[in-house]
Amino acid sequence: MRVGILTGGGDCPGLNAVIHAVVKKGIQHYGDEFVGFVEGWRGVLDNNTVALTLEKVDGILDQGGTILRTSRTNVRKIEGGIEKCVETLKANKLDALIAIGGDDTQSVTNALIQAGVPGVGVPKTIDNDLNGTDACFGFDTAVSIATEAIDRLHTTAEAHNRVIVCEVMGRDAGWIALTAGVAGGAHAVLVPEKQIDLDHVCKLLKYNHDHGKKYGIVVVAEGAKLPDSGAQATHGTKVDSFGHARLSGIGSILADEIEKRTGYETRSVNLGHTQRGGTPTAYDRMLSTRYGLAAIDLVHQGKFGRLVVLRGTKIEDIPLADAIAKNRTLDESFLSILDGLEPKV
Amino acid sequence: MRVGILTGGGDCPGLNAVIHAVVKKGIQHYGDEFVGFVEGWRGVLDNNTVALTLEKVDGILDQGGTILRTSRTNVRKIEGGIEKCVETLKANKLDALIAIGGDDTQSVTNALIQAGVPGVGVPKTIDNDLNGTDACFGFDTAVSIATEAIDRLHTTAEAHNRVIVCEVMGRDAGWIALTAGVAGGAHAVLVPEKQIDLDHVCKLLKYNHDHGKKYGIVVVAEGAKLPDSGAQATHGTKVDSFGHARLSGIGSILADEIEKRTGYETRSVNLGHTQRGGTPTAYDRMLSTRYGLAAIDLVHQGKFGRLVVLRGTKIEDIPLADAIAKNRTLDESFLSILDGLEPKV
Amino acid sequence: MRVGILTGGGDCPGLNAVIHAVVKKGIQHYGDEFVGFVEGWRGVLDNNTVALTLEKVDGILDQGGTILRTSRTNVRKIEGGIEKCVETLKANKLDALIAIGGDDTQSVTNALIQAGVPGVGVPKTIDNDLNGTDACFGFDTAVSIATEAIDRLHTTAEAHNRVIVCEVMGRDAGWIALTAGVAGGAHAVLVPEKQIDLDHVCKLLKYNHDHGKKYGIVVVAEGAKLPDSGAQATHGTKVDSFGHARLSGIGSILADEIEKRTGYETRSVNLGHTQRGGTPTAYDRMLSTRYGLAAIDLVHQGKFGRLVVLRGTKIEDIPLADAIAKNRTLDESFLSILDGLEPKV
Amino acid sequence: MRVGILTGGGDCPGLNAVIHAVVKKGIQHYGDEFVGFVEGWRGVLDNNTVALTLEKVDGILDQGGTILRTSRTNVRKIEGGIEKCVETLKANKLDALIAIGGDDTQSVTNALIQAGVPGVGVPKTIDNDLNGTDACFGFDTAVSIATEAIDRLHTTAEAHNRVIVCEVMGRDAGWIALTAGVAGGAHAVLVPEKQIDLDHVCKLLKYNHDHGKKYGIVVVAEGAKLPDSGAQATHGTKVDSFGHARLSGIGSILADEIEKRTGYETRSVNLGHTQRGGTPTAYDRMLSTRYGLAAIDLVHQGKFGRLVVLRGTKIEDIPLADAIAKNRTLDESFLSILDGLEPKV
Repeated sequence: MRVGILTGGGDCPGLNAVIHAVVKKGIQHYGDEFVGFVEGWRGVLDNNTVALTLEKVDGILDQGGTILRTSRTNVRKIEGGIEKCVETLKANKLDALIAIGGDDTQSVTNALIQAGVPGVGVPKTIDNDLNGTDACFGFDTAVSIATEAIDRLHTTAEAHNRVIVCEVMGRDAGWIALTAGVAGGAHAVLVPEKQIDLDHVCKLLKYNHDHGKKYGIVVVAEGAKLPDSGAQATHGTKVDSFGHARLSGIGSILADEIEKRTGYETRSVNLGHTQRGGTPTAYDRMLSTRYGLAAIDLVHQGKFGRLVVLRGTKIEDIPLADAIAKNRTLDESFLSILDGLEPKV
Repeated sequence: MRVGILTGGGDCPGLNAVIHAVVKKGIQHYGDEFVGFVEGWRGVLDNNTVALTLEKVDGILDQGGTILRTSRTNVRKIEGGIEKCVETLKANKLDALIAIGGDDTQSVTNALIQAGVPGVGVPKTIDNDLNGTDACFGFDTAVSIATEAIDRLHTTAEAHNRVIVCEVMGRDAGWIALTAGVAGGAHAVLVPEKQIDLDHVCKLLKYNHDHGKKYGIVVVAEGAKLPDSGAQATHGTKVDSFGHARLSGIGSILADEIEKRTGYETRSVNLGHTQRGGTPTAYDRMLSTRYGLAAIDLVHQGKFGRLVVLRGTKIEDIPLADAIAKNRTLDESFLSILDGLEPKV
Repeated sequence: MRVGILTGGGDCPGLNAVIHAVVKKGIQHYGDEFVGFVEGWRGVLDNNTVALTLEKVDGILDQGGTILRTSRTNVRKIEGGIEKCVETLKANKLDALIAIGGDDTQSVTNALIQAGVPGVGVPKTIDNDLNGTDACFGFDTAVSIATEAIDRLHTTAEAHNRVIVCEVMGRDAGWIALTAGVAGGAHAVLVPEKQIDLDHVCKLLKYNHDHGKKYGIVVVAEGAKLPDSGAQATHGTKVDSFGHARLSGIGSILADEIEKRTGYETRSVNLGHTQRGGTPTAYDRMLSTRYGLAAIDLVHQGKFGRLVVLRGTKIEDIPLADAIAKNRTLDESFLSILDGLEPKV
Repeated sequence: MRVGILTGGGDCPGLNAVIHAVVKKGIQHYGDEFVGFVEGWRGVLDNNTVALTLEKVDGILDQGGTILRTSRTNVRKIEGGIEKCVETLKANKLDALIAIGGDDTQSVTNALIQAGVPGVGVPKTIDNDLNGTDACFGFDTAVSIATEAIDRLHTTAEAHNRVIVCEVMGRDAGWIALTAGVAGGAHAVLVPEKQIDLDHVCKLLKYNHDHGKKYGIVVVAEGAKLPDSGAQATHGTKVDSFGHARLSGIGSILADEIEKRTGYETRSVNLGHTQRGGTPTAYDRMLSTRYGLAAIDLVHQGKFGRLVVLRGTKIEDIPLADAIAKNRTLDESFLSILDGLEPKV
């Protein structure tokens, strides 16, 4: 078979491991040929392709990024975009398309499937908030990087009797903040699922201070919000040195507020792009590989319109449309982990 | 309540994180008191205890090993052992006992439960082969360490056109070998679940050699066996420099055989104890913490005779007796990952 | 002998390793007693002390931060400060004082020496810019952390065809930026020793872009300056959400400018406090240990007023006053490394 | 100019960084052309070459191993070898040759220089024992890997009240053992420069045991010797499962002896090839880069017969013949570090 493959949306450690597994099994076991589209849907719109051979994927398993590169181009917002994609896929004489990406990417895959394209999806979101799967690759790597950073912040915060606020990724869901915060022994963890209770945070820090721990680590997801979120938006707008309006990060805003309210010297750090680059963890390499193998199997089983997912220890598949319906956010069983570790203040 | 706690069997990254979570939630939320038994069941037999306070568990979350230390003392092999344990537990006026350990440890817990002790189990095996749970803490850390080592071996093997055989842990199950082998891009992975096919391994290495990859990485679980396992046992017995009979590792035996059969220069390395020490990964810290929180909750719900387990993304509990019934080994869905990535030779 | 010890200024990986070495050799070989002053000179002013025993220093060798904590309290800016210190030292019946710190700390040590205190200095600056020594501990750790971050940024920048500006520590000297920039394969490295030539940076990025490398990594020291530094100060001042005037980082300013001038999507990340926390590298642990051993030897040789330094592979000592005279900045032999690796544009 | 380049002897993290720097500066600044010889001197003997372009060296800076591969082929032991090499170099119309390697490699370079070849050497030995330079690249990486392993061994040894003997590289010199041993807080460090005093080691372990530290870490260089070294050689010879006589490692021998003498459960681990693979540390990447830049500068300055070296913070050059004259071993100033940290037993 002749199979197209692309990676869309924000990059994520493990994308190359998926490509590696798809192409290896496809060529070695099924005798497939592979056409890679460069920079996600943009490459489909422009018919910008590269042949994916065994040589091309050799040694990419442990590399971050994606050899196909990626973009946030959303075909559905482009007039005639879906038709243009269908045309390109036909022109390339493809028997199937494997799309690796998150919500936005898969909503296009879904539209193409409606238009008759034989497509299969591989879920990708570093925020781990895709519905229908127990885990998304890249998440474990992001959490590992954030946890190592938090480990390091402990010692410098303690040496200076400081509070340090560490901002991590997570717009709509607090999976990274919760996991890295708990793993890193943070004294407070703030997530988008629950409005920030600044009073409570300050009480926790004071309680620790009064009980001998004169420093504090606060982990906050970028999407966590202060009660008056309108105010945050306004307050947070800084006009920067070049006249651009810019929303300052919640981490920096929180640090200011905590220092003001507690009197403790407080600093902030935003881990930013370091969380999504570099070699994937062993966990993510294994998960990506299993996703890739399952995706090419689906193609050869003719099971189109499906998304590969992890359920417990098994790789299964679900209707692609189900996954993009809604976000998977932290439920009470996860939020209660934080309560379980906190002192009563 | 007054709760006893112990860690038994081989040590494992995450033991301290379990203790940390149990004690934090127990004291802060339930007002419990904790008695730690030193060195597993040995400490119960000898009534060797230490009080576990918030101060004692502060900062241990990210530390390898176990502050309670451990031993392989098996109470059931000691005459009157179970009675002695029941006595100690009574003497300490305990309302419950939390035992963290694998098969051997939990079989004692089970015997004590039969004898009326209100016990709860937390599963622990770095080999990840305990029945009834999707994952055991410590395993992810071991896999990470092994994968990083395999990553490093690639470059030195390639620079010298060598084959390197890397022996990892796994007596009865090949979870570590499979996961680290796949994550590390090994060219052959050998596990206890499947007799070693040396011919096939050599064919794979030759195939790669003939296709331009003049080096090879073979990952082997310590428990993997050559066809004539009697022969292996005999051959492997070396009388060492001090007259001790010693079974040489399968890695070293394999390296000799591969070199003999292929003519490629072959070396072996045994990762040994480096795989079980040191700080746990973020994944293991989170899993251990969740196990600890769930265990102390079970105690307060009066659900004794239960073992906490991971099922998908949820922490649940199962009858302790079920977990020790049989080992969880690699099934076909996992073994087929290896086939999926191999060339046809 | 009875010896005082303190750590002053910003914290730095390796401080505990110095304390560890001083106390171990002092007690085991010389039979000394140790008095630790808490939070640098503040602890001397307040006579806030802790006894340093073998138990206290056991296991601290590999820990970041400092068990004595630290502060930036500058005695010389406090009226009667020096006298107060001399008094405290006398009250504690000390035969010697070992001060671990940078410029500010050692200028106080020097003043105390003038006032008759038998003092010895151990140099400390994570920026590596202390005069008279080949290397300062903490620097290698900071460079390692920054390099690992830059490694990670490559893949995400490449996947998105982006420029990423990475801001690292270094107010007056560019040692961290230069070393991590070269080690991390950055496409441009900007240091305080040389005014930023934005035209040149953009030319380099465009040259790479035109030659197939459609992404870029720029490493900038926090103290690097744009030509019109007055303008930078003004422009950089943002009034943040709580009305505090705040100087935005050079990394963020540069990213805006680069995007404006080149049209390439550009992001910035500031590694901040993650660079100074956590376990020291093996290099830093060894250097700190050697400094500590040499410092306690100096005390017993009666060589006061000296600072221990590294010269080649040897630990030597120089007059403490020499070290604080001026900063060690990048000279032409180091700056030319950058030229050597750049294309001619 | 047309310049040949090769890497010889055991591989070492940083080899690619040297090649990267040589080729980048050579092509971009001097307009050179580069011919790489494959697998060290073997490639010169066989005239097996590869053109080294900017594309070939792009992205290799941070990779372990060597893209030119390596071998231990010693031209001087081959009749007519030197003549054959001179011939190949002439046939390739080379204006200069840069040889990256240790003792054996450079002794050939030296012989070629005597025969009129315009050669320059770059020192390489992971053992760090080359005379005339303060540091060799690869050493810092090996020490880092060994130290991280030792860090991990502490927790597992402590959890089980065990002694663990960790064998590291170092045939003639104990630089890795000493540095990693001190950095890793080992309780005893044994090096080739000083006959092993087993009594003293056991006394140290017993002293610690009696003072509450019931576990021990012993680091031993592979080349360290027991008093009766003849006996060691004989005792150590094991006839393995395939009839090969094999010298078992000193680590394993020591573990047996320590257990026998102290009664403490003792295990051993040999870090082996994991120490020389993988990405170099930032320190090694910088040092390799500086060596590479200096080597191509020497070529253009016509300074042949020289070896680039590190002296303090400066890159200098010395007569190549000086470096291979004798090994640089640990002197008293380094050995005394161990005494400084030990208790008196």
